[in-house]
Amino acid sequence: MLRPQPSDIEIAQAATLQKLIPLASRRLGIPEDELSPYGHYKAKLSLQHIASLKARPNGHLVLVTAITPTPPGEGKTTTTVGLGDGLNLIGKNTIICLREPSLGPCFGMKGGAAGGGHAQVVPMEDINLHFTGDFHAIALANNLLAALIDNHIHHGNALEIDQRRISWKRVVDMNDRALRDIVVALGGPGNGYPRQDGFDIVVASEVMAILCLANSLTDLKRRLGSIVIGYTSDNQPVTACQLQADGAMAALLKDALAPNLVQTLGGNLAFIHGGPFANIAHGCNSVMATQAALKLADYVVTEAGFGADLGAEKFIDIKCRKAGLRPSAAVLVATVRALQYHGGADPKLASSATLNTLRKGLANLDRHVENVRTHYGLPCIVSINRFSSDTPDEIALIEAHCAALDVRCVLATHWSDGGAGAQDLAHAVVAACESGAAQTGFLYDDNLGLLDKIRTVATKIYRAAEVTADPKVLSQLSEWEALGYRHLPVCIAKTQYSFSTDPKLRAAPSGHTLNVREVRLAAGAEFIVAVCGDIMTMPGLPKAPSAQRIDVDGQGRISGLF
Amino acid sequence: MLRPQPSDIEIAQAATLQKLIPLASRRLGIPEDELSPYGHYKAKLSLQHIASLKARPNGHLVLVTAITPTPPGEGKTTTTVGLGDGLNLIGKNTIICLREPSLGPCFGMKGGAAGGGHAQVVPMEDINLHFTGDFHAIALANNLLAALIDNHIHHGNALEIDQRRISWKRVVDMNDRALRDIVVALGGPGNGYPRQDGFDIVVASEVMAILCLANSLTDLKRRLGSIVIGYTSDNQPVTACQLQADGAMAALLKDALAPNLVQTLGGNLAFIHGGPFANIAHGCNSVMATQAALKLADYVVTEAGFGADLGAEKFIDIKCRKAGLRPSAAVLVATVRALQYHGGADPKLASSATLNTLRKGLANLDRHVENVRTHYGLPCIVSINRFSSDTPDEIALIEAHCAALDVRCVLATHWSDGGAGAQDLAHAVVAACESGAAQTGFLYDDNLGLLDKIRTVATKIYRAAEVTADPKVLSQLSEWEALGYRHLPVCIAKTQYSFSTDPKLRAAPSGHTLNVREVRLAAGAEFIVAVCGDIMTMPGLPKAPSAQRIDVDGQGRISGLF
Repeated sequence: MLRPQPSDIEIAQAATLQKLIPLASRRLGIPEDELSPYGHYKAKLSLQHIASLKARPNGHLVLVTAITPTPPGEGKTTTTVGLGDGLNLIGKNTIICLREPSLGPCFGMKGGAAGGGHAQVVPMEDINLHFTGDFHAIALANNLLAALIDNHIHHGNALEIDQRRISWKRVVDMNDRALRDIVVALGGPGNGYPRQDGFDIVVASEVMAILCLANSLTDLKRRLGSIVIGYTSDNQPVTACQLQADGAMAALLKDALAPNLVQTLGGNLAFIHGGPFANIAHGCNSVMATQAALKLADYVVTEAGFGADLGAEKFIDIKCRKAGLRPSAAVLVATVRALQYHGGADPKLASSATLNTLRKGLANLDRHVENVRTHYGLPCIVSINRFSSDTPDEIALIEAHCAALDVRCVLATHWSDGGAGAQDLAHAVVAACESGAAQTGFLYDDNLGLLDKIRTVATKIYRAAEVTADPKVLSQLSEWEALGYRHLPVCIAKTQYSFSTDPKLRAAPSGHTLNVREVRLAAGAEFIVAVCGDIMTMPGLPKAPSAQRIDVDGQGRISGLF
Repeated sequence: MLRPQPSDIEIAQAATLQKLIPLASRRLGIPEDELSPYGHYKAKLSLQHIASLKARPNGHLVLVTAITPTPPGEGKTTTTVGLGDGLNLIGKNTIICLREPSLGPCFGMKGGAAGGGHAQVVPMEDINLHFTGDFHAIALANNLLAALIDNHIHHGNALEIDQRRISWKRVVDMNDRALRDIVVALGGPGNGYPRQDGFDIVVASEVMAILCLANSLTDLKRRLGSIVIGYTSDNQPVTACQLQADGAMAALLKDALAPNLVQTLGGNLAFIHGGPFANIAHGCNSVMATQAALKLADYVVTEAGFGADLGAEKFIDIKCRKAGLRPSAAVLVATVRALQYHGGADPKLASSATLNTLRKGLANLDRHVENVRTHYGLPCIVSINRFSSDTPDEIALIEAHCAALDVRCVLATHWSDGGAGAQDLAHAVVAACESGAAQTGFLYDDNLGLLDKIRTVATKIYRAAEVTADPKVLSQLSEWEALGYRHLPVCIAKTQYSFSTDPKLRAAPSGHTLNVREVRLAAGAEFIVAVCGDIMTMPGLPKAPSAQRIDVDGQGRISGLF
């Protein structure tokens, strides 16, 4: 682990890839004609083939989640890829399911997002840039609906849409703060009726959440038609179906609904499909991909956004509930560095990262372990994503602590060693899955009122003492219940950096107040969003964006991603 | 020709397609690995392979152009496809080169744009919807530059860009009039500096014109860097290169630069690549595609936008001049119906379409024939796109008229008969090409001043008596000449419905005035746009847009395109 390691893009570009369609056909038994190629190393699996697999038994579904995120990151995607390679290495036929990275942030701070080190999905440049065009299709479908709204109003507004109450925004896959708050349709009668508007980044579109929750093209179209774009002057919801937008939107999304297959550096298969925000949406890859993978493999390793309080909760209460999925185990990713941060260490001050701060930070791990085991009903394995700077004392402390909690703790070195570095983790995961200990239930019942659902998540998972909300929020929830949306699950958008709504409260705060600032109806995605804090749906670029470093040479070789 | 014919999409969906990569490999001798598949029926030809063909001789380049367009259309794309199939049928190895249709207009009036009847390129649904993602890549590259401009100003504006003089707009591939004229960056200091802005449709982006004129990835990046996005407060141009945007833009466009191959209903190969506007840009498919096709086939049939006054002139004076292309012949498409329209017939009044209106309308044909032969130096063949309603008298009149002009006139029925209906046309084209009569020159010399270039096109081709312009326009042209842009060709944006700037003046007006209302610098595309009249760079949707009819069923079958 101390050997110097090249950058992610250098490792990825040095790899010899196998042609994907023969690989997938041989490994998964998929007829080659059911795979639609996008170049030689990416393919989409046909919806027809997925439908034909229905009668097969499901493999084990393993969720990779994490402690409360810290600024430097914990390596959840890297662990997901490493674990998948590790499981294949110990003889378990395994497919990985990940989200597609958003293109916009590549040009900002992040560089790419396809794992790291020797635990990556490839071709990483393609995955990080346009991939198979899914996000472009989502943006177009979203923006077609937007154009149809303003066009309907321009041509007489037969549906009597109240221009002040349109909630549907346009989207672009770009970090572009200038588009957050705009006025459209200026310039005279030929250009429509002026109104205040704004763009979100494409991953924040409800169309993205819909694509990720739909289980067929028919279900996709039904959900698109159910989108509520705003309200009439007498406060009735107006749907995409009323604007006759659903057919064309579904036509634009027909190919995007088919899951994308790529390979890992270990030569194993990964679905990378869909990428909804983890705050105002549920933050998981598509149901189509997960369901296909469960039919095609004995083990499916997937991840959910943010920590186990947010991502795993939405994975269970939104995705698994709606898609009928039953995970077998959860892996909770942590790092020494992140636990020290939760114990109060200052990332800029090396001397503040002591055994004592580590000991204090373990409170965060404990809380997540308890949530996973008690509230999500899953066997939990703690995976320490090892860094070369970790000391034996630090590792010993975590191991002793986990032993006392009776939770399995495994060290993983996939970042430097690929799948071989995650073999211990793979064995632990197999043991947990085969134990049959999983008893997934849901946190709340469909029939509970919307506010009570929010309260249940807040008190059980976040350990808040109470939930508050403006009368306006409360009456909005009541109105939606009266309109028939009471049965929907809730999707809580809050800071990912704390169990509370204060990102500075590290470790395991409790007794705080969760204030619901705003609620949003995602009638097509079929959940209610409760916004608790400042949630940014259109990021900006930093002063020196990575776009200025990204380049391509005359031979088409890309540099500057990472 | 009187038999009832199914719709375009029905014909296209009933066809049995061949897998594209084996087809292209067998027919054109391309190694399979040099073709990157997008599904089974679309592929991109690698830039490396195109570069490797350099030493081969060029085939004959045939331009399909048309008389002055009329509202019902003349069938230029259909003729291009039919002629290509016809040439292959008579034993000439031929490739077709077309523009990619824009997605936005599909949802408005037009339905699809991939030929018609039995002269189509397929798969038509894919070609009309996302195709291989080129337009999405262009939109992203365009919008990345826009985001970098506002981001640069937000973070201190070191380049001292004058916010009031930014000419770079954002784009979307959607007919969305509400985005024509907007105010961005409202909402406070976190969102940047408010300014007036607007969106164009993606085909109007200068990035589209650049992609279509670049002859390598290196040339593409150089052109992207040369884009002038606006001016500093002391009136100096600011380029994309100064914003360090060119590398990332080129990285986004790396795959888009490789030409797309598909097949015709006749089983022949067609490049469909790039689709710049024909008014504010040059309106031709990419140089990469045309150059590759000329190396791979004996005949290449391509088309240019609008009539022979606009599209063919830009094809010659912009595309051929810059890419070193030498066409061998031109086909001028006309219909009885369109000629009658030019003779004064009212399209809504069948009785107004007489032999007399036809006779008067032939003046439009004469003018184009003269321009093609005299000014473009090309052998000209008139192709009558036959309709079942055409009478023998009407056909006889046109044939006699062409005979008197000493121009070959051929009847073509590819719409109903496929390539077999264009065999006579194919033979005529071969004779013209083999005659060696082509003597392409250009209308003006690079060294002529910008205003004199505009005047040359206006007087020689449009037969205008004079060119007028505001002093502001004149001083702008002088400034650009002083900045080193004097050598660029000019691209005149005017109505396509008349030789004059008045769309109501049909047939062959002369002695009119061409008023240059505005000039624009496309420093990366390397031409100066002279705007003469109202040019719409963001269309709107009609009251009942075709989006409301487009649909997809549970099996993924699309309907409502046409």
